[in-house]
Amino acid sequence: MFFMDNIKVAIVGWGNVGRGVLSAIEKSPDMTAIGIISRRPEQVRKEVPNLLRVFDYDSSVFVDNADVAMLCGGSKNDLPKQGPEFAGVFNTVDSFDTHANIPEYFAKMDEIARANNRVAIISAGWDPGTFSLERVLGDAFIQGSKRYTFWGPGVSQGHSDAIRQVPGVADAIQYTMPYPAALDKVRAGGNPELSTREKHWRQCFVALKPDADSAAVIKAIKIMPNYFADYDTTVTFETPEKIAERKKEMPHGGFVMTSGQTGDGNKALIEYNNQWASNPEATGNILVACARANYRLQDGGRWGAFTMLDIPAAYLSPRSREELLKDFM
Amino acid sequence: MFFMDNIKVAIVGWGNVGRGVLSAIEKSPDMTAIGIISRRPEQVRKEVPNLLRVFDYDSSVFVDNADVAMLCGGSKNDLPKQGPEFAGVFNTVDSFDTHANIPEYFAKMDEIARANNRVAIISAGWDPGTFSLERVLGDAFIQGSKRYTFWGPGVSQGHSDAIRQVPGVADAIQYTMPYPAALDKVRAGGNPELSTREKHWRQCFVALKPDADSAAVIKAIKIMPNYFADYDTTVTFETPEKIAERKKEMPHGGFVMTSGQTGDGNKALIEYNNQWASNPEATGNILVACARANYRLQDGGRWGAFTMLDIPAAYLSPRSREELLKDFM
Repeated sequence: MFFMDNIKVAIVGWGNVGRGVLSAIEKSPDMTAIGIISRRPEQVRKEVPNLLRVFDYDSSVFVDNADVAMLCGGSKNDLPKQGPEFAGVFNTVDSFDTHANIPEYFAKMDEIARANNRVAIISAGWDPGTFSLERVLGDAFIQGSKRYTFWGPGVSQGHSDAIRQVPGVADAIQYTMPYPAALDKVRAGGNPELSTREKHWRQCFVALKPDADSAAVIKAIKIMPNYFADYDTTVTFETPEKIAERKKEMPHGGFVMTSGQTGDGNKALIEYNNQWASNPEATGNILVACARANYRLQDGGRWGAFTMLDIPAAYLSPRSREELLKDFM
Repeated sequence: MFFMDNIKVAIVGWGNVGRGVLSAIEKSPDMTAIGIISRRPEQVRKEVPNLLRVFDYDSSVFVDNADVAMLCGGSKNDLPKQGPEFAGVFNTVDSFDTHANIPEYFAKMDEIARANNRVAIISAGWDPGTFSLERVLGDAFIQGSKRYTFWGPGVSQGHSDAIRQVPGVADAIQYTMPYPAALDKVRAGGNPELSTREKHWRQCFVALKPDADSAAVIKAIKIMPNYFADYDTTVTFETPEKIAERKKEMPHGGFVMTSGQTGDGNKALIEYNNQWASNPEATGNILVACARANYRLQDGGRWGAFTMLDIPAAYLSPRSREELLKDFM
């Protein structure tokens, strides 16, 4: 007999990812959302179903019956502070995605979680997250191989935000676009060297402020270091209404490819791709699978920080062992 | 500092997969092949490098310094007997691939491995194996989704063997071919129902015996239940030399696709595919990654049977934790 768990989840932060997490929990028979923790509880109260309790961030330590707290804040300002705060009190899952700072964040979360007998799953989502997983699997299965990651087509919030900082810009949205020819080049084998510019281009849609200098805006975007200077970038002006409409849809996706040889020159290629019409819901769904894994890791008493690289697939799955062996192997 | 392991591996069975395993070990800096165990040691002795010891199958219990024994026999006749025999004495990895019997085989291997403080990783390879892993991950990340598995283009040994049993056939090779239109239908969403016949077709190349009745051979192949009756099948006659040449190359591959929705109707698609010019080397490479995981599971004292669903990706990887966090997340 398969006994279904009921994992009690608290959602910390009510932005796009928080909404994606709630929507994924609603589809999970083994999980219940018990509350939302927010810095603006009155406003959140108006937006969510009556059954859900809403807690003020500063009194959130009282939500002590949550099995897992999902930290849905951003990596730049929220998580570096929230992660360590919550990991001492809750078992946590977060989507910390500042790749360069992951080792440091992992070390900090690991220390706090161990000291407090908690499980902290960090950097979950699709990149970092499932893409990290696929990079590691590809590398393990094709020794001496080369890895390629492509993103898009999809909206980059970070790049959209950067455009909005440009003087004269009222609103903006940016799509990251992989070059199909570059994907095909990798698929053909031979492990090509591809520059940043050869892999992706950036498509920007911008609504100008009244009296803005459109030529200056285009130039400011195209030369922006780190964000656009290394890419072929297009800028198209649209009305604020059109941009607002685009912002309702948040598609994203990407490709992880591992290419190499086995034995004496036998070609080997592994390709993984995902395409999501809603990026925050994708993240929400993956975080929810990680909440399930978190609960099972607690059961084993394995305290500390984990990434998706440290979690067996069976822990992420709502299926019973019998079902997995019978229907999925 | 990263201390590199030296995992000592014994190879049990010197067929295509055994050769694939040896070739993968040679590329693994953290692993050494210490010997081959075979029922025909004199013959194997002539084929392998001098440094490798070759043991007679019946005296194989003396190879007691192997950290992991790779069971490279077939699922039909070898593994049901070899698996339980070896799991009591060695930590094992095998590629048992009779899908319907996996639950029973798992239970048996689990019982023996637990009783003897051994780790037995069963059903590793790409299907079952990495494909199982991707089916479980896709199902966990897109709730309520539908799964599709396609195989090929590639050689099916089982189907080739079946053709060779047909009266009048001197030799044969069979390629399993996915229909590209079926793949595209899945990619387009809408979770189509696809019959066996709509997903794959079967391409057979046959060398006839002298005086064979070619029409009778074609008919016998096309109506063969389980193997060909449910598929569109083509039969092409070739010379024995041409078939022999084809048999030198053993490409295979396939696709795992998971298609569904997140939230309120937002399309979600995950596609995984691998293409291997050498199927046995692919299996060998994956088994070798599992040998590494086996060694690490032993270190944790986690005795019993495991599938690839139970193994964290980090255990399969030769990379250090620092490298994984820094370069792969």
